[in-house]
Amino acid sequence: MNKRLIVYYLGRIMVLASLLFVPPLAVSLLYRDGCFFAILFPAVGMFVTGLIGSRFKPKDRRSYAREGFVIVTAMWLLFSVFGALPFCLSGAIPSFVDAFFETVSGFTTTGSSILTNVEAMQPSLLFWRSLTHWVGGMGVLALAIAILPSAREEGSDGNAAVHILKAETPGPTFGKLVSKLRRNVRILYLIYAGMTVIEIILLCLGGMPLFESIVHSFGTAGTGGFGIKNTSIGYYDSAYIDYVIGIFMLLFGVNFNIYYFLLTGKLMKILKSEELRWYLGIVAAAVVGITVNILPRYESAFRALRDAFFQVSSIITTTGYVTTDYELWPTFSKVILVLLMFVGACASSTGGGLKISRVIILIKTAFREIRQQINPREVRAIRCDNVSVPAAVAHGVTSYFAIYMLIMLASTLLVALDGCDFTTTFTSVVACLNNIGPGLGMVGATGNYAHFSVFAKLILSFDMLAGRLELYPLLIALSPSIWKKNV
Amino acid sequence: MNKRLIVYYLGRIMVLASLLFVPPLAVSLLYRDGCFFAILFPAVGMFVTGLIGSRFKPKDRRSYAREGFVIVTAMWLLFSVFGALPFCLSGAIPSFVDAFFETVSGFTTTGSSILTNVEAMQPSLLFWRSLTHWVGGMGVLALAIAILPSAREEGSDGNAAVHILKAETPGPTFGKLVSKLRRNVRILYLIYAGMTVIEIILLCLGGMPLFESIVHSFGTAGTGGFGIKNTSIGYYDSAYIDYVIGIFMLLFGVNFNIYYFLLTGKLMKILKSEELRWYLGIVAAAVVGITVNILPRYESAFRALRDAFFQVSSIITTTGYVTTDYELWPTFSKVILVLLMFVGACASSTGGGLKISRVIILIKTAFREIRQQINPREVRAIRCDNVSVPAAVAHGVTSYFAIYMLIMLASTLLVALDGCDFTTTFTSVVACLNNIGPGLGMVGATGNYAHFSVFAKLILSFDMLAGRLELYPLLIALSPSIWKKNV
Repeated sequence: MNKRLIVYYLGRIMVLASLLFVPPLAVSLLYRDGCFFAILFPAVGMFVTGLIGSRFKPKDRRSYAREGFVIVTAMWLLFSVFGALPFCLSGAIPSFVDAFFETVSGFTTTGSSILTNVEAMQPSLLFWRSLTHWVGGMGVLALAIAILPSAREEGSDGNAAVHILKAETPGPTFGKLVSKLRRNVRILYLIYAGMTVIEIILLCLGGMPLFESIVHSFGTAGTGGFGIKNTSIGYYDSAYIDYVIGIFMLLFGVNFNIYYFLLTGKLMKILKSEELRWYLGIVAAAVVGITVNILPRYESAFRALRDAFFQVSSIITTTGYVTTDYELWPTFSKVILVLLMFVGACASSTGGGLKISRVIILIKTAFREIRQQINPREVRAIRCDNVSVPAAVAHGVTSYFAIYMLIMLASTLLVALDGCDFTTTFTSVVACLNNIGPGLGMVGATGNYAHFSVFAKLILSFDMLAGRLELYPLLIALSPSIWKKNV
Repeated sequence: MNKRLIVYYLGRIMVLASLLFVPPLAVSLLYRDGCFFAILFPAVGMFVTGLIGSRFKPKDRRSYAREGFVIVTAMWLLFSVFGALPFCLSGAIPSFVDAFFETVSGFTTTGSSILTNVEAMQPSLLFWRSLTHWVGGMGVLALAIAILPSAREEGSDGNAAVHILKAETPGPTFGKLVSKLRRNVRILYLIYAGMTVIEIILLCLGGMPLFESIVHSFGTAGTGGFGIKNTSIGYYDSAYIDYVIGIFMLLFGVNFNIYYFLLTGKLMKILKSEELRWYLGIVAAAVVGITVNILPRYESAFRALRDAFFQVSSIITTTGYVTTDYELWPTFSKVILVLLMFVGACASSTGGGLKISRVIILIKTAFREIRQQINPREVRAIRCDNVSVPAAVAHGVTSYFAIYMLIMLASTLLVALDGCDFTTTFTSVVACLNNIGPGLGMVGATGNYAHFSVFAKLILSFDMLAGRLELYPLLIALSPSIWKKNV
């Protein structure tokens, strides 16, 4: 383990990341909400800590996958700790564990909140809370890599960057974007920022105030789901706003390589994308299923369709915005939503969950296995996008699924110690591990996570981080074996 | 597909299986409960149908895995249909779907019941209902193979028998018992019958009437769980009976190869068995966890331990007997029970669930995968019982798990159409797919399955069969591709 290299990188990234406190500082000055110093202190603290860390210039610049995993885990934890301080110092969230939970929930784009009255929070803190979604969506380390200035000059720097990006990017495969890495990360971030700006403009056109448009667009872009109204998006009660946010959630759940292809004119690649077809197909099926199921409870079919579309889009992309209390829907619709929680959005999007591409491989593996039982000698590879999937990738996905289920079941057991009902216990873990936010029962559309014990909040924080970082970085950083050897 | 061979085998097995109606016929005569003809007609019907089928002597005696799968699926379906008729004809269960559900639940050793007042049922039908557990536990086809008289003389007959046994026997690997197949199946059935007799004697010694001892021993041996009292085993309120049944449930959940080793004096093999150690370890951990968790609600620690032990033993072996309303326990204890539902008993036992050996391989695969992420070039095989598990077996287990979860989620969605609450919907599927019986909520310790719609009952029947036959036979028999080709 190259510890010097880890400290050095963490330091450099922290210096950059401390700049993220600047926008909320500006908001605080603008609104004069008295949170200026509560935000300034953590910012300065992070900057100085980073400066000290970046003095540890490593002699040995070699880095392996393990260093990438540790850097990513440590950075996300450090960022969550420093990011939680403004809430504590301002007194908005007195308990540090609560503030930490809220910040982890922000960075991991989960959107689970311990706030019972979000409308009482100061504007700058609300802005900071939503900014964590925006940064967490594409990845804070990706952002750092995109803007790290001196990196190109240093020899093996790209190597570490690859490992960091691999560890932070969601999805089973890390596409061809590895080459010309930094350039491509920048392009992705530009697409991301551009789409966010378009959504802000569209929301403003719909009559939403600018501040609220920005905050909600951050929550949409990162597929996070933190709102600033107690009734989430339901507050606006506007078909236009529902459809704008609903469509943008879907767009941010698309594999970002698709937009890259779109920009470079490779339309055939988009049409060939199986993941995109499955994604849209699942959304369509879920919307139709729920609309038909809830129709008897609605006076207008259009309204049922609108609520169904918004909620399906919000849950499959793991955003977690709410326009209606789906807790009152029939069980069939609720089970569809729970299934969508597991499915999640496309790989390399800002969404969480298992990811569509993993679900495709799981389903195809299942059918292949059945065929193989009939003809044991016939060995066929799974095909995706008309290309056969390497056996190692397919096995990786089934193993990932096994680890994912083990973490889910273990977490459910530990959270059950709190003694909430079964539905609340189970869906709170599902909602946190898949980075969604709301679940069913006490953590449903109108509920929150305030009632959980400190222990349960830490377990759920772990789940949120494990879900966002796709299990391995966290599990590896926690496994004693990598710390033993002096490699 | 060798259809003639399938019909021929089904015919021969049906002739033999029709003899299973003889014991309940005798009980009916003994108790004069008026069900004699209701049992006789299906018996004769099955015998005659079998006789006709066995006339189709196949010219081509070659058989492959697919014929084994189809024979097993067809036999279990036929057996459930004929087995349901006594309930219908006697008027005890007027609806055929209900009677079918109850019989499938019996043969698959699930123990889910649609009866709201089991004490009102005639003795011969109660006996028949529990006999289905006993036969289903070790496998009706295994029984037929063990006693099929003329089989040894016929050349390639053993081939078909192997495929049938492979399709019917639970567990990821089909041990070395394949050689000397018929002899070994007989030995297993003798061990099974011997242990059942010992339990009957022990229960009689505890003051339980003979008829009730037999019926409850059938339910224990098959790890089924059909009782004959509305409060299940709780009716007797006896520590002795609780511990006898509790221990015997555990014994029937042990891999039967262990008993085979015990009889042949291979004690070292028993000590080396990782599955046995995990099984006992999980039981001990669950009993301790639940006892500590429920202690504040009990006046005596011994009583808490007794209830915890009985329920853990009942759920992990997927029996489903009940001595207390665990619905009233804290959520932590309930979640432990739900986790045990997934784990299930040992492979090659009469229990259901995923099976301990699969869980071991899943957990070891998970840890191996994490290690491999740290050192991608280091390829290590998983080891079980100090022997490395072939990669194909390990992949088979993760694929099995994926199929299993897909069926579970799809069934939950379909059963949700009934509109029961989430906990009831989810745990009814878990309880049926894992062949347990009771779940939580409306299907909990004091509930039953009567309230479900015909559609949901059919879905749950499918789940019970899929769980007992370990997915593949049923899925393969239903897949159109094997019926297309004239192989």
